[in-house]
Amino acid sequence: MRHSDLIQQIRVKKSFLCIGLDLDIDRLPSPFKKNIDSLFSFSKDIIDATSAYSIAYKPNLAFFEAYGAKGWGVLEQIMDYINSTYPELFTIADAKRGDIGTSSERYAKAFFEVLNFDAVTLSPYMGRDSISPFLAYKNKHVILLGLTSNLGAQDFQLLGEGKNTWFAQVIQNSQTWSNSDRIWYVVGATKAEYLKLVRSLVPNTFLLVPGIGAQGGNLSEVVRFGLNEQCGLLVNSSRGIIYKSNGSDFARAAEVQSHKLQSEMEVYLKDIRDFL
Amino acid sequence: MRHSDLIQQIRVKKSFLCIGLDLDIDRLPSPFKKNIDSLFSFSKDIIDATSAYSIAYKPNLAFFEAYGAKGWGVLEQIMDYINSTYPELFTIADAKRGDIGTSSERYAKAFFEVLNFDAVTLSPYMGRDSISPFLAYKNKHVILLGLTSNLGAQDFQLLGEGKNTWFAQVIQNSQTWSNSDRIWYVVGATKAEYLKLVRSLVPNTFLLVPGIGAQGGNLSEVVRFGLNEQCGLLVNSSRGIIYKSNGSDFARAAEVQSHKLQSEMEVYLKDIRDFL
Repeated sequence: MRHSDLIQQIRVKKSFLCIGLDLDIDRLPSPFKKNIDSLFSFSKDIIDATSAYSIAYKPNLAFFEAYGAKGWGVLEQIMDYINSTYPELFTIADAKRGDIGTSSERYAKAFFEVLNFDAVTLSPYMGRDSISPFLAYKNKHVILLGLTSNLGAQDFQLLGEGKNTWFAQVIQNSQTWSNSDRIWYVVGATKAEYLKLVRSLVPNTFLLVPGIGAQGGNLSEVVRFGLNEQCGLLVNSSRGIIYKSNGSDFARAAEVQSHKLQSEMEVYLKDIRDFL
Repeated sequence: MRHSDLIQQIRVKKSFLCIGLDLDIDRLPSPFKKNIDSLFSFSKDIIDATSAYSIAYKPNLAFFEAYGAKGWGVLEQIMDYINSTYPELFTIADAKRGDIGTSSERYAKAFFEVLNFDAVTLSPYMGRDSISPFLAYKNKHVILLGLTSNLGAQDFQLLGEGKNTWFAQVIQNSQTWSNSDRIWYVVGATKAEYLKLVRSLVPNTFLLVPGIGAQGGNLSEVVRFGLNEQCGLLVNSSRGIIYKSNGSDFARAAEVQSHKLQSEMEVYLKDIRDFL
């Protein structure tokens, strides 16, 4: 998807909401049998109920791979459904991959060609040549892990001080790579104070912010430090939307919750001069 | 697999060779049709031809995922074949995953339960809680990316000096985690001089060393700095074995090449006092 088409969708829907599809058989609402075939039906109902308020969907690959080839088949069904029914939606493979040379090329092919995702999350640890095969795709995006929202972020990402913090070095180094205009970053909402540092390093880049809701992040904090002239944010919520209700009203509950987040986002978007 | 069973296999076969299954339809030898169904037959022939000289196999997940659900199915076939026919072989999912909480638990389930791998390669970037669900499995191992053999290792892994180098900090920090006796490390053979530093930090840990052969690593250098009293090395070769010939003699060529490496390894193992 072209960058301008994403911006246009944000304007039309007045939303920068991304919905994470963390599909878990054990958490499927009561109308569904707890089996793998239900995962697609559930996802379809969630997407249908929320797509008016959300601009992006982020399937989490771990949950599909846990079910082997069948799980991968469900992912293919979901991507077929989104690409054919809602081609305006931005899709992110939450894969957190990072590998070298031919392996990296294979992953790029899997996500960008076979499954036709618009973006993929990648781990920076192996460096430039683990990312460059993905950056070769025009109108596709790499979302590098910068600062994640989990406790373990302290173990490595937050080592060092200020601009020498590991996550800040990841951002600064990767900005020097070819096609770095196709690189965005994951910055966890539970660390909103660090968004200020990130914005000083990459004022114009889009940031994918997980951790709103279940993980304790605060939307107003995220917006305060993260919003830029072109919005520049995709804020993700997963379990807080898709498992809002586990009864037969699950789709309606997801719709209400996504509408609520969209309404909050609309207020913030109106504050951006000449944007909406 | 129990650690002692791995050591026993090294003693019996007088080898610490790991064979990487980087399966690529385009590189299949001429007896095979260039289609996905051939990937299992090819792998089976390679394993049958080389298992006398190799103690471990390392399927590279990128190559399977590039073919979607079908590719994942081939991986399941290969793991079924190894687990039923050669249960003594050590198996490594070269996945380089790194995710949080429930996602990480799902990956652990996928690799250790569904596919029954003995070990999985993981990226350290997200820290302790991205790794701990894997460390909860008794008789399974996590192989953390330490220093990889690609050029991009310079971008982040080699930032800093001596014990403050990123990869050295990854090793030192992770050694303080619960069940850290189940953590091994990837240390690229193209950086043999760094093995000395790694061995000073983790004298007793197993190291997975890729990069022998096609990537330019040198076995004698690796052994000189990496071998310990219990061997402590798994040295990987992928393309140098499985694509040694692309004619009808591919299996025989793989056998000869793996035997050659095993013979070199036997010489080094004999130098370890009271080991063989």
